[in-house]
Amino acid sequence: MNETNPFKLLGSKIVYQNHWMKVREDSVIRPDGSKGIYGVMESRDSVMIVVLNEAREVYILQTFSYPASAWNWELPGGGTEDEAAEQAARRELVEEAGMTAQSWTQLGNTRVCNGLMSERKTTFLAQDLSFGEKVDSGDKELIREGKFVSFAEIGDMVKRGEIDDGQSLTALYLAQQWLATQQ
Amino acid sequence: MNETNPFKLLGSKIVYQNHWMKVREDSVIRPDGSKGIYGVMESRDSVMIVVLNEAREVYILQTFSYPASAWNWELPGGGTEDEAAEQAARRELVEEAGMTAQSWTQLGNTRVCNGLMSERKTTFLAQDLSFGEKVDSGDKELIREGKFVSFAEIGDMVKRGEIDDGQSLTALYLAQQWLATQQ
Repeated sequence: MNETNPFKLLGSKIVYQNHWMKVREDSVIRPDGSKGIYGVMESRDSVMIVVLNEAREVYILQTFSYPASAWNWELPGGGTEDEAAEQAARRELVEEAGMTAQSWTQLGNTRVCNGLMSERKTTFLAQDLSFGEKVDSGDKELIREGKFVSFAEIGDMVKRGEIDDGQSLTALYLAQQWLATQQ
Repeated sequence: MNETNPFKLLGSKIVYQNHWMKVREDSVIRPDGSKGIYGVMESRDSVMIVVLNEAREVYILQTFSYPASAWNWELPGGGTEDEAAEQAARRELVEEAGMTAQSWTQLGNTRVCNGLMSERKTTFLAQDLSFGEKVDSGDKELIREGKFVSFAEIGDMVKRGEIDDGQSLTALYLAQQWLATQQ
């Protein structure tokens, strides 16, 4: 695939940053020849985990989304710190669900919002589980209960709007693709 | 579901904006009682379209992602303007693919990035297609070819990294769920 960039970069500056995000504004010549800007939000790359038990049920947890100002069900995951993606996934699984897994499979690496963000997300399948205590990372008030549910039940929860996190659905798509090759 | 917000809002300000995004920084009392900030990127809500032909193949197009600085395959879609979601989807389908569809089905409404963004995306299924000319909305240099491919071929393209747009996979998850109810 030809990677020719149809934009010409004239300059770049950080216009806002906090601990979790950086917003970059580039000055560009657009593909049509006009001068303009392009804003990009840079955030830490992230991970999401499809935790599968022996009944082939998936672990979901009820978390609070600050931007949506709502509690909802989603798959475990979070931003990477100074660590490899699989290490981040192992850490998040302990922190958010109190679980460890013997078997880890990378299912995909996707862009979260390819028009506005640089963030990429690595999705893992975690199997052969052991159950322990959650490790409080300071976010425990943002997670309520967790539970295992079947793929069919997840489909029903999506239909009812109880799961509306697009990134969780991306992970489930990848998991279903993987499962289809295992049958 | 109890919608209690565990954050207390102290104040809010816009710290950056351009034509496509607004970044809001809220001053908050966090769930653990400490004072802090929460940054949220606000962008236009958006639509994505699973265009299905009579062979049950899906239309994909090769577009340029500025944040990724790469060409890749994804489903048609884009931001809403001052219009309802279905109208935006109809407009995008003409602009990006030169197509109109007689049959429109809303498949879901999902949050794009529930930790950092307020944007919601409505996914539609478009069927009973008519083919015409693309309408140039000023983005034509950012779209190369488009084509219909089977769900199986899409799965292979995802495996090979030729499709890595998470939002397209969210839409495909919703389409597969819908198709499963049609058989």
